Parts: sequence; C-alpha cells; structure tokens
Amino acid sequence: MSSAYDIEAFRKAIGPIKFEDNPVLVRQKSRDFYWYSPILKAELDHVAADLVVSPQSEAEVVAVLAAAHRLKIPVTPRGSGTGNYGQAMPLAGGIVLNLADMNRVRAINPGRVICEPGAILAKVDVETRGSGQELRMYPSTYATASIGGFVAGGSGGVGSINWGGLRDFGNILRLRVLTMEAEPRALELTGEDLHKAAHAYGTNGVIVEVEAPLTAGYPWIDMIVGFATFEAGASYANALGEEDGILTKLITVVADPAPHEYFLRHRRFLPAGQSVVLVMVADHALDALRAFNRRYKGASTLFDASLIAPEDRKGLPPNYELSWNHTTLRGLRVDPAITYLQALYPFPNQLATVKRIHEHFGREVMGHLEFVRFNGKITCFGLPLVRFSTPARLEEIIAIHQSMGAPIFNPHRYTLEEGGMKQTDAVQLAFKREADPLGLLNPGKMIAWEDPNFDFSAGRNFLFPGLEERARAAGA
Amino acid sequence: MSSAYDIEAFRKAIGPIKFEDNPVLVRQKSRDFYWYSPILKAELDHVAADLVVSPQSEAEVVAVLAAAHRLKIPVTPRGSGTGNYGQAMPLAGGIVLNLADMNRVRAINPGRVICEPGAILAKVDVETRGSGQELRMYPSTYATASIGGFVAGGSGGVGSINWGGLRDFGNILRLRVLTMEAEPRALELTGEDLHKAAHAYGTNGVIVEVEAPLTAGYPWIDMIVGFATFEAGASYANALGEEDGILTKLITVVADPAPHEYFLRHRRFLPAGQSVVLVMVADHALDALRAFNRRYKGASTLFDASLIAPEDRKGLPPNYELSWNHTTLRGLRVDPAITYLQALYPFPNQLATVKRIHEHFGREVMGHLEFVRFNGKITCFGLPLVRFSTPARLEEIIAIHQSMGAPIFNPHRYTLEEGGMKQTDAVQLAFKREADPLGLLNPGKMIAWEDPNFDFSAGRNFLFPGLEERARAAGA
Repeated sequence: MSSAYDIEAFRKAIGPIKFEDNPVLVRQKSRDFYWYSPILKAELDHVAADLVVSPQSEAEVVAVLAAAHRLKIPVTPRGSGTGNYGQAMPLAGGIVLNLADMNRVRAINPGRVICEPGAILAKVDVETRGSGQELRMYPSTYATASIGGFVAGGSGGVGSINWGGLRDFGNILRLRVLTMEAEPRALELTGEDLHKAAHAYGTNGVIVEVEAPLTAGYPWIDMIVGFATFEAGASYANALGEEDGILTKLITVVADPAPHEYFLRHRRFLPAGQSVVLVMVADHALDALRAFNRRYKGASTLFDASLIAPEDRKGLPPNYELSWNHTTLRGLRVDPAITYLQALYPFPNQLATVKRIHEHFGREVMGHLEFVRFNGKITCFGLPLVRFSTPARLEEIIAIHQSMGAPIFNPHRYTLEEGGMKQTDAVQLAFKREADPLGLLNPGKMIAWEDPNFDFSAGRNFLFPGLEERARAAGA
Repeated sequence: MSSAYDIEAFRKAIGPIKFEDNPVLVRQKSRDFYWYSPILKAELDHVAADLVVSPQSEAEVVAVLAAAHRLKIPVTPRGSGTGNYGQAMPLAGGIVLNLADMNRVRAINPGRVICEPGAILAKVDVETRGSGQELRMYPSTYATASIGGFVAGGSGGVGSINWGGLRDFGNILRLRVLTMEAEPRALELTGEDLHKAAHAYGTNGVIVEVEAPLTAGYPWIDMIVGFATFEAGASYANALGEEDGILTKLITVVADPAPHEYFLRHRRFLPAGQSVVLVMVADHALDALRAFNRRYKGASTLFDASLIAPEDRKGLPPNYELSWNHTTLRGLRVDPAITYLQALYPFPNQLATVKRIHEHFGREVMGHLEFVRFNGKITCFGLPLVRFSTPARLEEIIAIHQSMGAPIFNPHRYTLEEGGMKQTDAVQLAFKREADPLGLLNPGKMIAWEDPNFDFSAGRNFLFPGLEERARAAGA
C-alpha cells in the first residue's frame, strides 16, 4: 500500500532518529487491545501507520514533530499500546510516535515522581519503593503499561478505591507537553490546565514528561472472598470500601460463573457456584480485614495469599491481573465470544441498581464490579462480561443499562466523546486549536475537531473517513 | 486528708518504683482538661489521688498492679492528661498510674509502629519520619498527648478526614494490656478484640504497648480559606473533603466571630466578619488545592503557609492547634465563659442540619465543624463553642441539637456511656469482669459496672458516690 504522505522526505528529515518500517512490526505497533470489542475489531482491524518512530529524547520528539508538521503527516503518540479503544491507533496512517524508549524515572521525592512518558508503571514502582512509596493508581496492565499512556488514555483503576480517578484534582501533578507546530513548544501544565491534555488520547499535544503523586508503598496481600450470590458479594464489597480504617487497593466483584470458568489458574480455590470479591489489602491491615470478614455473614475466605506456601502461589497471577480489563481478558481467553461494557452505578443507589440489572440479564451479562471512590463516596463501576450475539443486541443491552440507571461509558467507540461524556470537551478542543492547529495529532479521535456540528443526541455513531465501510460491514 | 487506703503498705510493696506524694504534684497529675466544661469543673475540681506511681517498665507496672490488687487500692492509668472528660481522673482516689516514663518507640516497620503507652504522638512521628511514614491520626494535643492515652481516651482527630475514627477496624493494630489481678496477666488484643480495651478509659486493663498503623509521612502545608458565611465555609469544606485526589489531613470550619476574636496570633490574617476553613494539605497537593480554590466561588485564601516568610510564621501555631479541642481552648483563653459541645451531623443531611442549627442559635452557639470520613462518607462532627449561661440552658441547647438531627456526644460527662452512645457496652463490661474482677481500675467511669440497673433513658445523670453533692452545687 503506497502512502498518502511523503514518508521518504520525512525519513530524511529526521536523520538518525530510530524508526521502523517493516510492515509487520509497524502493524504491531499500530494496534492496542481494541479487539476486546467485536465492533472495534471490525472497524479498526486494518489500521496501520506508515512508519513507527522511536525517539530517545525530548529533542528527538521535537525534531519528529517539526518534520511531520512541515510535511503534514499525522502523528499518533503511543505508550505501550495497552489501551482498549484504539486510543493510540493511527486512523489516518502516517507516523506512530512510539515513546517506549523514553522510559526513565527522572526524580523521586516525597509525594512525587517525575518520569519520561514511556516509563512502565510497575518499573516506576520498583524505583519509588526504595523511598517507601508507590504510585496511587494503575490499570490492570500495570506490568506493561506506560505512565504517559495511562495519563493520556486511562481513567483510573487499581487504587481508585482510595484516590478516585485520574480526572480528579491531585492525581496528576504536572505534564510537560509538546505542541504540533512548525517549531514545537514545550508547555508545562499544572492545576486546572491538566484537564487540557489528560485523557485526550494525545490529540492535542505530546506528553514528554509526567509528574505523578506517590503514596505509601506497602506490601499488598491478595485475598479472595466467596459468596453464594453476586448481590451478597456486592454488598460486602461496598461495606468493605466504607471501612475507613482498612487500607485496601482493590475491591472487585465477579459474578458466578466467571470466577470458576475464567480464572483458570486460581480454579482450585474457586468452587463453581460462587461469586467472588477480589481484595488487595495492605499487609498491616490483614488482621483488621480478617476481623471484618469474621463478622460479615456469608463471607467465606477462598484464598488468602499470606497463608499459601510460595510453591503453591507459583504461576498465580496477582489479584489485579484478575481485575478491571484483565477480567475481560480472562473471559475472552476461554470464550472468544465474550465482550464487555463499562458502566457506572451511581451513589447512593449502586447496590439496588446492580441487583436490578443483574436480575434482568441473568447469564447473558455476567456482573463485574470495581469499587471506587467517586466524588467522595464509595460506589462502583461495572465492567460486565457480555455474551456477544449481535451489534444490535449490544446496543440494546447498553440502552437497558442506561434506562435502569447505569450510565454506560461505551468501550466500543474509538472517539473521546462517544466513549465518555458524549459531549464536546471545550477545554480540550480549545487546547487542540492552540497546540495542533493543523489537526495532525491522532486524527479521528476528537469529534469536536473533525465534525463541529456532530449531533451527539441523534443516536448515530461518528465515523472517521475511511472507516464507514468497515463499520457498515460490522453492522454497527 | 487521710486516705481510705493503706498507702504506706503499698509504698513498701512497690519498693524502688518511682512515686510522687507531694500533694501539689499529685493533684496536678490527677487532672486533665475537664475544666473546659463548667459542669465537670464543679464536679471534679476536688479530685485527687493519694499517690502517683511512675513505672519504668512493664515489670514495674505488674508489680504496682499486684500490690494495689492485694491492698484493694484503686488504680487510674494516665498518659499525659490531655483528655477533656476526666478520663484519667481518680474519682475514688488511690493510685494514679502515670505511664509517661514508658515512652519509647520500640519498632518501626512498613505500616506499623510499636510504642510504649507514654510515647508522645509528635515524638513518635519524629521517629517514624525517617522511614517516610507518620501516624494516621492524632488529637490537637499532638505535641503533648501520649499514644496510650489517645487510644484509651480519644476517638479521632487530625487525619480522620482520611481514616475515620479509632473505633474503626484497622486504626489500632494491637494492644498489650495488663489485667488487674493478684497475678496480672498480659493479654495481646488484635482484630475485633481491640474494642474491649480501646476507648475504655483504662477501666478494664492497663495498656502497656500500642501497635499503630502508619501512613505516608508528607510535609503538610497550612492554609486558611475565608468565606462570607459559615454555611459557605461548610459547603466548601464538604466539597474539598469529597475531592478524592487532594490529600488533606485536616478540614476545619470555624464560624465568625471566633476566628478573628480567638485566633489571636493569626489575627492579622483573619478579617472580622469572615468564617474560615483551616486546611492541612500535603505539599504535593498544594497546586491541586489552589486550582480547586480558584474554581470555588466565594473562597478567598487568607493564609498560605507556603507563601509566608519564615520570620512571619514565627509564633504562629500550626493549623491543628486551632482545630478540634484547641478551638475551644483558644475561645476559653479569650472568654472564660466559653464552653463547647460535641455533635455529629449525619450524612447525607450534614450541610442542611448545620445550617438549620446555626441559624437557630445565632451567636450563642458559634459553629465549629471538623470534617471526617464516617462509615465511608464525608460528613462532619461539630465542636460548637457555646456561650455558657446555666447548666439548664446547656441541657436545652443539647436537646435542641438532638431534636434538629444532630446527636450529641456530651463532653460534660465523665462516664464512658454518657459521653458516648448512652448504652452499656457489653464487650467492654465483659472484659472488665475478666480483667478487673474487683473493679479497681479507674472506678466510676463505667456505669454498667457501677450500677448495672442504671436507666439511660430516664434523663438522669449518673453520679459516682462522693460526687453527688458537688454536682448538685453545680446545678447539674
């Protein structure tokens, strides 16, 4: 496939900067976990860049952006590619700006870590742990995801039970962002300005440095607690989340039959018929958690990592790799027809809403809840496992959730708006006008830029030019 | 005054263990901050032990208890005497067991500190800070209060905005407690058993070791934010408490005119007519707090310690010494007729309840709120400043609070039950039967022990023998 862009001129312009043009490798670096969604799978499967460029320094990123700007070649920044919505997939081709080589931890101070964007979250924690600290939150892809990618494309995860989401003031301290201009500028964003570039998929600037808050780094103990019903597990999880003195980092509820059927390596601990709550608890809070469990009717401890011999723990993934989108992944590995949704069950009706929806769908939609702090209250997000039949039924399932009081953040959409609040983010749009006036950064992801008159209420999906046909073929 | 007990025999029995019998010094060590309450002042002013004993080790405590048990002399354990309800005042005379000399920090580990009971909270933090950690919570008497006294007589304080109260699972890890028997036993209490001895005023065991949880120790910045009205300050404080990503340790609201009139050293920062919110914010969250403040209508920053030159900060108490019961203290220093109450404004109606009560009383009851996590939600306790007229009016003010939806924890009572839930604590009572079968520990504080048939609903105060007359004289 010949490119629409003058890639040859670009390559000359960037001189010695590391690049990759082997089509197999370029395609690999043009993908993420979009295939969790059968809709995105059909729409995005063909997406590939022309070239992957891997700068080693901010100066090299500047050179790449300046060259691409001059040649009007789109640039899609990428961390580790662990997103689920095609965040870092180059819809218009051009350049994938692979930031994985810029992965140093630059400074660790009380409450703060400064990293290059490609720093892997788990590796950041390895380095901060010497100071008794760790990151506040991370996705279930902790072991492979980059901090820049998390900030640009994530919203929360493990740790959100304490700290809320990345959108909350204080959960990102500073971003250094390069603009896409003839002479790229470096902007330092703090405070309210962080909203300009956080969770913007790299559509309006390239994050070249992240300053993130740290918290106390404690050993976390995995525990799995079993319940006769999903509702009982949800009630327990909510009550545990409201135990102000018991420090946890993760409280996940997974409905029967998923634990026994999908958590294969833990299967010997997880009897069929049990719904489970996955907990990460600080080791110094283990005694308190056990006291809480003893008092809680119907809770039976199925797994307590602190009581299991190291040889029996071998090969068991940590609880966080059974949680958030790893729950989906484990379902998909057993049953490729599984997909998922993302729902919020708003406080104070979360438990009633969960129960109502769970009863309505039965086993077509297997409950999966992630308890979090949200606007100061404990409530839950859901990443229910959906037995996929048709796109139309998936839309129906979404509509039923919404009608029953659970807003859906649609993971089957690749645009910022359709996956999120379904409205224009005026701050991000204004910043794109300033930082990427030619619209070369990650094209197709910000509807407000591509189609200012798009009607979010019309029930129609946004389709980036070139993707319509494939979407039609997928029936979306 | 000759003693009812054979103090001479006791002194011989304890041999070389340090004691004090100078009446002036004994009286000093028989008191706490009970005089914040005009009621307790009248009732307890005469209370004094016969002897103060200051053991240097657990073995010496054992010897003291064994001797006192044999001679049937009451023993009242005491930390630093910073309580407000006569917790450590020896109503029946006898021995004050002064644990102030047992003040070593024995071990610091990730998430845990092990201390002797007399260890001063602020000094514990000095030692833990080397590991990047600090205590989760402390009273406003941090600089002088002991950890054993806090656990035995306190309920929460600075830090409760994150961690709830001492009563919550996980906020005390372990207590080592000596029984009052012929041969005192050492019991290790953990998990649910902690409720036996925590907040029991030393009525059912002597705490000789405390294991407490730690959290990340960060530099805290004092900020004071001004508002035109108390209600506006309360709304801001609630909203700030619900900012999951902004790490604070204290959020206190004090109604006009108290800040300008009572916070004398800060007066130049506090214009008359302003109600204020006192905030302790982690230094790495300062930028986020400023962003939050800029966005919050009606908030004006009156004081930001990070922007004030060291020479201008000299002599200014830290914010926590303007908060909790230090607010009361600062009021009392200016106007000796000030006293206080302790109220809970239950979630979710806390702001409406605060407003209603504040409007009802006007300046007779000056609002003072401490925002906390309570059962997983942000809400507030109140320690309103009351312009005291008569005990009858004070009772009326309490009754009005309760009728308006704010339960009162009465700080004008010296018993566990009347200051708290107004019911027998069966767990603490059962433990007293086991650990202090003769009822020699801190007599008069646990009604359930002294008068099993006491009727909490009769509206009558419990009066320990000998205190009736003084109570009558005080009009209570």
